[in-house]
Amino acid sequence: MRVLGIDPGLASTGYGVVEARAGRLVAHDGGVIETPPGAATELRLVSIHRRVRELIGEHRCHAIALEQLYFGQNVRTAFAVGQARGAVLLAAGQQSIACASYTPQQVKAAVCGHGRAPKEQVARMVATLLALPGAPASDHAADALAVAVCHINNAPLARAVAGAEAHRAEVRR
Amino acid sequence: MRVLGIDPGLASTGYGVVEARAGRLVAHDGGVIETPPGAATELRLVSIHRRVRELIGEHRCHAIALEQLYFGQNVRTAFAVGQARGAVLLAAGQQSIACASYTPQQVKAAVCGHGRAPKEQVARMVATLLALPGAPASDHAADALAVAVCHINNAPLARAVAGAEAHRAEVRR
Repeated sequence: MRVLGIDPGLASTGYGVVEARAGRLVAHDGGVIETPPGAATELRLVSIHRRVRELIGEHRCHAIALEQLYFGQNVRTAFAVGQARGAVLLAAGQQSIACASYTPQQVKAAVCGHGRAPKEQVARMVATLLALPGAPASDHAADALAVAVCHINNAPLARAVAGAEAHRAEVRR
Repeated sequence: MRVLGIDPGLASTGYGVVEARAGRLVAHDGGVIETPPGAATELRLVSIHRRVRELIGEHRCHAIALEQLYFGQNVRTAFAVGQARGAVLLAAGQQSIACASYTPQQVKAAVCGHGRAPKEQVARMVATLLALPGAPASDHAADALAVAVCHINNAPLARAVAGAEAHRAEVRR
């Protein structure tokens, strides 16, 4: 099970590819899709959509997990994030990839054990869980990796698959 | 100059195709893209995106005009509308079609002469300006036709082209 985690935004969309393999979590990719602030919105969305399509293809992702908007944000931000999210969901829909959304609280609870963990703790825990050499350079990439981890921990199928793989790995030893 | 007007929404996206020809406004198409409420958001966005692409191609549209969100709406609505708007803008960006946004006040002022006109007045004026047999059956289609009219009235180039065409038509008589 390979999950593409996305932290959508018009200027910066974080992404992270995480796989559950033999009961372990492995990060295959992570980074940020940046679009120039001066460019027309439709062209910025084209960049986001194209890169997400590429990531799904390159890594043969089975699912996309997105951070849901924090509903305390203002309407203007919600609108801009919504547009970026639309471009990401569309890329998934066009390739028949399942999408799941998680609130920031669910993501934090999944990686840190409680829903109010500060940003730095999330980044540190992402690094620990994925055995990265250090915290991801970008908060957006860290959030995207975190939501991918959250999806893997929440998807019962994923758990079953990971469990079965761990069992097979155990048996092979 | 052929303009595709769009009133974006996840459940119902209104559309209207308007052309400025020989100083007159002509409606070529108008309707609503509806998506089933129970379907996954990504699949609803795929439907909207596909239909908008088709409309651009079928009618060889030169520009897309969209209603801008009314910023008094709540965050949840803004988010849903933003996603639908993202799918529409993406279709435009992928086909290198210019996009323009107008507030409801600008649209109302363009078709009714004042920015606080009620919905029914907008629908009636759209019918009058486009010489339709009656007000459009759907508010979404009426709003989409209205934003297309607004764009034509606001685009200086469009005005110049329409003016030149009217002049040529005059000369030919």
